[in-house]
Amino acid sequence: MKPSRPVYFDHNATTPLHPEVKKEMVAAMEMFGNPSSMHAFGREARANVEDARHRVAAFMGAEAEEIVFTGSGSEGNNTVLSLFACGTSQCFPGMKPKIVTSRIEHPCVLETSGCLAHRGVDVSYLDVDAYGKIDLGQLEEFLKSGGVGLVSVMMANNEIGTLQDIPAITKLAHQYGALMHTDAVQAFGKIPVDVNELGVDFLTISAHKIYGPKGIGALYVRKKTPYCPFIRGGHQEKGRRAGTENTLGIMGLAMAVDMRKAEMEAEAERLLGFREMLRKGISERIEDAQFNGHPTDSMPNTLNVSFPGAEGESILLYLDLAGIAVSTGSACASGSLDPSHVLLATGVDAERAHGSIRISMGRSTTVEEVEYMLDVLPGVIERIRNMSTAYI
Amino acid sequence: MKPSRPVYFDHNATTPLHPEVKKEMVAAMEMFGNPSSMHAFGREARANVEDARHRVAAFMGAEAEEIVFTGSGSEGNNTVLSLFACGTSQCFPGMKPKIVTSRIEHPCVLETSGCLAHRGVDVSYLDVDAYGKIDLGQLEEFLKSGGVGLVSVMMANNEIGTLQDIPAITKLAHQYGALMHTDAVQAFGKIPVDVNELGVDFLTISAHKIYGPKGIGALYVRKKTPYCPFIRGGHQEKGRRAGTENTLGIMGLAMAVDMRKAEMEAEAERLLGFREMLRKGISERIEDAQFNGHPTDSMPNTLNVSFPGAEGESILLYLDLAGIAVSTGSACASGSLDPSHVLLATGVDAERAHGSIRISMGRSTTVEEVEYMLDVLPGVIERIRNMSTAYI
Repeated sequence: MKPSRPVYFDHNATTPLHPEVKKEMVAAMEMFGNPSSMHAFGREARANVEDARHRVAAFMGAEAEEIVFTGSGSEGNNTVLSLFACGTSQCFPGMKPKIVTSRIEHPCVLETSGCLAHRGVDVSYLDVDAYGKIDLGQLEEFLKSGGVGLVSVMMANNEIGTLQDIPAITKLAHQYGALMHTDAVQAFGKIPVDVNELGVDFLTISAHKIYGPKGIGALYVRKKTPYCPFIRGGHQEKGRRAGTENTLGIMGLAMAVDMRKAEMEAEAERLLGFREMLRKGISERIEDAQFNGHPTDSMPNTLNVSFPGAEGESILLYLDLAGIAVSTGSACASGSLDPSHVLLATGVDAERAHGSIRISMGRSTTVEEVEYMLDVLPGVIERIRNMSTAYI
Repeated sequence: MKPSRPVYFDHNATTPLHPEVKKEMVAAMEMFGNPSSMHAFGREARANVEDARHRVAAFMGAEAEEIVFTGSGSEGNNTVLSLFACGTSQCFPGMKPKIVTSRIEHPCVLETSGCLAHRGVDVSYLDVDAYGKIDLGQLEEFLKSGGVGLVSVMMANNEIGTLQDIPAITKLAHQYGALMHTDAVQAFGKIPVDVNELGVDFLTISAHKIYGPKGIGALYVRKKTPYCPFIRGGHQEKGRRAGTENTLGIMGLAMAVDMRKAEMEAEAERLLGFREMLRKGISERIEDAQFNGHPTDSMPNTLNVSFPGAEGESILLYLDLAGIAVSTGSACASGSLDPSHVLLATGVDAERAHGSIRISMGRSTTVEEVEYMLDVLPGVIERIRNMSTAYI
């Protein structure tokens, strides 16, 4: 039966505001001081920003002073990689210039590392296996070649959900004297993230993936780690990120984090059940459905599946007409006609990559929505395959 | 008589949300799609972002496609200057490497240009006269030396309010083949700003200075101007600024702009009256009060004044106790014990610079508040001067 409201299966692209976040932000709209101002208006804003910093830090096992608020996950990732853009050795004497990252990172890592490579930085890319996992052996080879300053590997892939073994990667990076960064934008608030268990030096998060507002994120920077501001100017964030603090966004992020603390565990279990229900239902009902990503070591809310002979954008549009929102991969890569770089890296061919959709669930997802999807999807695939001469 | 609510005389640091902006943002909280998503949720968000882009563009005489939304004024200014950070000539063949800016720019320009200088970019700084005006003769000398790629001069100074002759500066810059950028964060929405009358290639604005939310700004980039994203990653903003669009912030900025369109002219006239009332009242009541900035060619809402023998931070704190919020200069520079670089550049000595406050008014300012300030300030200055052995 068709649910009364549209079905949103695109939580990896973005999420609605949590009702408590909304409430917090509406209340906070009365407070407007600049946290850098010394007067009462400013002190009130400062107190709220620092309170938020403590709450965000605590949920990842960090100290408040290790949190730098940013404008987005992309900005956080650009900040870390750009530490290595600097041509002056005077800022970081002894900083090693090489970067190692993976072929399945988010565009904000790949585009930035690509730009750095243009500018003379040596960047190496880790391959992944059919499930999207990097190979520690290859990482060690890169590290052994010497001169690696930073390893940047995402915790959970946004398209296929595959998780990496960040503690093991970090251990290896540190063994060879490299700093370790993980883009945890898709993992944070959905599965446990603890900076000390992970051991990382830098970790990126974003609010709008966890029912917080868009335009705000945070970067964890371990104490005593070499650092340089990406956006330069005022003394905000202890000189680590210039620009008047987005007080409303920061308070929204902190409330989103508090809600994740309360809801994350039960939700992950619930969504894992839905994911397996979808996997089983799709397997049974649709011929040749091929699942992408790791079958178990992956995000509980994410299912990426290919339907040979059916083009992903067509599937998306037919589902949209039926009131179901999915995506063909990363929203950040949409507009591009290229097949997903993530799927290609896992060895999927271009045609299968073009015929893939990502189903990403969240706190609003119900069993009725999952059942509705299983009712609708087979007909959509059949219809598209029938129109296509390529699939016989 | 003491007003019933605290008096906010720090509108150059930040402003409260306009009630219409608040209303718009609260309503927009229900809409949460990612504008890059192809489904209905995404298309709704996209339509709102593009509508906002048209409204922001129109108010400065620009075309919608010339507007890039940013996370702050600081990010906008960093973006423009960082075009010149790139070591690869392949991005901008023929781009000239020298930058000319002024000594009284906002820290986000000065810190960025300072970093570029470290990295081998040739940066020259324009002096200013006693009123904070740059000298076109000196600018021409710098341009004549050859190789200047960018001139960056702010439209209105944030501390003293002095306006520069941007059309004349732009004309000269273009005559010598340089691009022209103006930081219009303090001017936009308070006095007329038209990109075609100014002639500039880049112009920076920020929402929170004009009763919009913090964490959102925009950069005007004239069509066909060489450009390179500062935050790299997804295809957002036509590849010019990566990161999921801050839909709520963008819609808040557009509504703030609409409100400025309606209110700016009358407000500027009203505030100019208050400024002159303050100037006259302070002159008459406080011995040795010295006004900083240009007496007429300056922001109608801003008055910067020095009181020899009274330390600025003490004045701020005593006024705060009396329920009046002012600042000692830029909020972005607070935390620093250095005297204002702007006042020093105008030839003010360090002691007088330390004894300065900035009064910046806005739409909530009333004649009663101005009168209350004139009642309270003389006693505050007298009290501080009496405590100080330095002033006899």
